[in-house]
Amino acid sequence: MRYEELTIEGRNAVLEAFRSGKTIDKLFLLDGCKDGPICSILREAKKHDTIVSYVTKERLDQMSETKKHQGVIAQAAAYQYAQVEDMLKAAREKGEAPFLFLLDNIEDPHNLGAVIRTANLAGAHGVIIPKRRAVGLTAVVARTSAGAVNYTPVAKVTNLSTTIRELKEEGMWFVCADMDGELMYQVDMKGPLGLVIGSEGAGVSKLVKEQCDFTAAIPMKGNIDSLNASVAAGVLAYEAVRQRMVL
Amino acid sequence: MRYEELTIEGRNAVLEAFRSGKTIDKLFLLDGCKDGPICSILREAKKHDTIVSYVTKERLDQMSETKKHQGVIAQAAAYQYAQVEDMLKAAREKGEAPFLFLLDNIEDPHNLGAVIRTANLAGAHGVIIPKRRAVGLTAVVARTSAGAVNYTPVAKVTNLSTTIRELKEEGMWFVCADMDGELMYQVDMKGPLGLVIGSEGAGVSKLVKEQCDFTAAIPMKGNIDSLNASVAAGVLAYEAVRQRMVL
Repeated sequence: MRYEELTIEGRNAVLEAFRSGKTIDKLFLLDGCKDGPICSILREAKKHDTIVSYVTKERLDQMSETKKHQGVIAQAAAYQYAQVEDMLKAAREKGEAPFLFLLDNIEDPHNLGAVIRTANLAGAHGVIIPKRRAVGLTAVVARTSAGAVNYTPVAKVTNLSTTIRELKEEGMWFVCADMDGELMYQVDMKGPLGLVIGSEGAGVSKLVKEQCDFTAAIPMKGNIDSLNASVAAGVLAYEAVRQRMVL
Repeated sequence: MRYEELTIEGRNAVLEAFRSGKTIDKLFLLDGCKDGPICSILREAKKHDTIVSYVTKERLDQMSETKKHQGVIAQAAAYQYAQVEDMLKAAREKGEAPFLFLLDNIEDPHNLGAVIRTANLAGAHGVIIPKRRAVGLTAVVARTSAGAVNYTPVAKVTNLSTTIRELKEEGMWFVCADMDGELMYQVDMKGPLGLVIGSEGAGVSKLVKEQCDFTAAIPMKGNIDSLNASVAAGVLAYEAVRQRMVL
């Protein structure tokens, strides 16, 4: 398996990539550049909800491998994203209650990789991440997932709160990890479950938290603030595994 | 808090560091160099069980910050190591059954940092690591521990099996994490407990495993082999926390 970061450079190449349906995680444009081809690329980016960063020529030169970027560099996902519906379908086909991980703005690729790895081994049907302010399926993520990206689907959604609301209508329950919550051992995590894990610094954002049915707290006895994000996800996920297991 | 990697260069400086009782994690010597001062340094290194690497002049030049290494560079621990006895004493003073983490050759500093962080929040009294073939308390470890190294003592021992044998005589029980084990929910982790976590690749080594009283398996439902080492430590530790908790 090779996980290469796919960098696409130059106006035609980037436009082509968008039109062929390739998932572009991030688009870098030369600041101030506004001619026809750039506007076409911007339209495509908007259509696909791609994050656009305006950068200096020096920055683009530094990022460029071909040295022929023409003011445009796109970073494509190293892996294909899945759809949320496919995850629900996979659960149905296995005759299992859906079990999904939702990650609210995880920024560290090592953490995202480790969480996908955990999701795979905990028997989750998929991992949902937001499009904005979060790391995507980069090469580092794929590598630190220890191959789990090949098995556990990852979906990218525009708005995590909206996705939660929609999935609640399909009968799923959502538990978010937060220190203020009820002790996790007392939160019911059987049935169709979405586990919501917050970012490294800020935890689960307010809007997302409001959509959750329960808040579960990992008991903390020590002197410091919080567990590493991927460790916290693992601990909470395996409490769900314990509850969902017929011993 | 500043966690700086302490590199000590030059013959006198390194000899002084040893004699002042500073913990040297690793010693780099110019290959083939065998004069008087070098022999004195080697004697000190042997006395303190320090790992010695013989390297080329190019390698030393590359590592050197002062460019005056005189064939000797030592890496000191960014943090002070504790003694195992102090951990048992701390448990006694708190009126708690000892709860220790033993890490068999964790090589990744981020994993060690995350495990110390977990140990702190799970209420463990300390973390024990081996002197050889394992990462020490480097600056990266201190940083990824999110400050936990300030609270949770870390001891470095010559031989993990010997330490386990000694602690068993003091009434402790040892549980090692391994896929072949009994389902972790069925392993009794109350009482004076040592949790033994294996390395990223090879798991718990045979000699160490033989010393353990029980082998506990984390249930794995997925397609890949294993959890990230720090996630596995967290999941197992929190199963112990659950069992040790009076709900």
